[in-house]
Amino acid sequence: MGWLHAGHRSLIQRARGENETTIATIFVNPRQFNEAADYQRYPRNEARDLEICEEEGVDLVFVPSVEEVYPPGFDTTVSVGDVARPLEGAARPGHFDGVATVVAILFDLIGAERAYFGQKDAQQVMVIRRMALDLAIPTEVIACPTVREPDGLALSSRNVHLSLPERAAAPVLRRALLAARARWEAGERSGDALRDAMRETLGGEPLATPAYVSVADGGSLAELDRVPDGGPVLLSLAVRFGPTRLIDNEPLP
Amino acid sequence: MGWLHAGHRSLIQRARGENETTIATIFVNPRQFNEAADYQRYPRNEARDLEICEEEGVDLVFVPSVEEVYPPGFDTTVSVGDVARPLEGAARPGHFDGVATVVAILFDLIGAERAYFGQKDAQQVMVIRRMALDLAIPTEVIACPTVREPDGLALSSRNVHLSLPERAAAPVLRRALLAARARWEAGERSGDALRDAMRETLGGEPLATPAYVSVADGGSLAELDRVPDGGPVLLSLAVRFGPTRLIDNEPLP
Repeated sequence: MGWLHAGHRSLIQRARGENETTIATIFVNPRQFNEAADYQRYPRNEARDLEICEEEGVDLVFVPSVEEVYPPGFDTTVSVGDVARPLEGAARPGHFDGVATVVAILFDLIGAERAYFGQKDAQQVMVIRRMALDLAIPTEVIACPTVREPDGLALSSRNVHLSLPERAAAPVLRRALLAARARWEAGERSGDALRDAMRETLGGEPLATPAYVSVADGGSLAELDRVPDGGPVLLSLAVRFGPTRLIDNEPLP
Repeated sequence: MGWLHAGHRSLIQRARGENETTIATIFVNPRQFNEAADYQRYPRNEARDLEICEEEGVDLVFVPSVEEVYPPGFDTTVSVGDVARPLEGAARPGHFDGVATVVAILFDLIGAERAYFGQKDAQQVMVIRRMALDLAIPTEVIACPTVREPDGLALSSRNVHLSLPERAAAPVLRRALLAARARWEAGERSGDALRDAMRETLGGEPLATPAYVSVADGGSLAELDRVPDGGPVLLSLAVRFGPTRLIDNEPLP
């Protein structure tokens, strides 16, 4: 969606290392914004984005107009079921329909062998992987590690909206996740206890308004009463700072 | 969906005439049956279908299992909006979601340049064309003329379910469409009058239970109060004979 940062650079670098040709798509997709105001204020800077793509050696940048992605009379929706329902899906009605639909279109248009997404949007990666597998789109979905500021804040195009005090407070997302992870490493297996660990950390930051904290099965994203020792688990949260909503997550092995 | 008849043969012949390689897919798609009983009783004869494909010179027949089309954990739906809502969409909840989803999968799997469908399922063709255009699937959707028995009954795999008296009565669908068409050719432009013409003809056949009669815009499928002189119009109907439901249509130029 543009407003490229070091997280996107890491995706491009990974793609270039594993493929002969690297294509970047830049498209602020109106269909995945559940609030019109959020779409309007999403940051855009095409000239700078193209410079970054050039610097990183992208072979082709696809910057379609809204009309090019959604032809006249467009009226098709791609929906993913269970894995799209909780967390961001519950908080942002229609968001993942918009994501699944535009990514199906972009995958069909581009015909890439591999597509690289940031693990920061963990649920998005799961929704896209499910969609591509189910619709037999032969593009492999690859999740890449979240890139962070030195203080732990996950890079996000939305960070630009933070005021200075909000920016100073925003690493609380990471601290909350690490607090829960530390409790888990110390042997805690109660989902509620781990969620409480996140809530307590967030509660210490007056500028942060938690939207959700989650301890979920890493495959289904169903909330867990108890963390099993075997399977993957995803700790995740969403927090508002004024009008700006940030998310982050931490997978447990 | 198999149980191949002369209508399917005509699709294969058209495809062979326009392409180097012709692939047929045979798959009775459980997701497009809104009634489980209808799925169970849908006629199947793979051996005969393969013989017909051989006779017609099909290069490759793809006969996947349900598990091959819908991998474990399958959870994605492709939905088309307005054009999928009336007529068959209203009568058969979920039907066109099932059609759009399986055809998106088959198009992505096969990668054909052109796909051939019977005009008998006029709304289906419109839904599939919209879906393929919207999702940027580069398969051209081509509608082929309905093939009919000498008495006018449109070929359909479901015709096999008709009892002898029902089979004798079934051409009433075609007669009803032609009655409305004749009224239109005589200058009638009232949608209700044309629908009445179909209902009157159907009313003369005791074994026929009409489900709907429609005089609709040929682009949007919205019901018409008055038939415009310019654009395309679709006359269509659905009629039950006992447990068997038949459809047919007649486009007005």
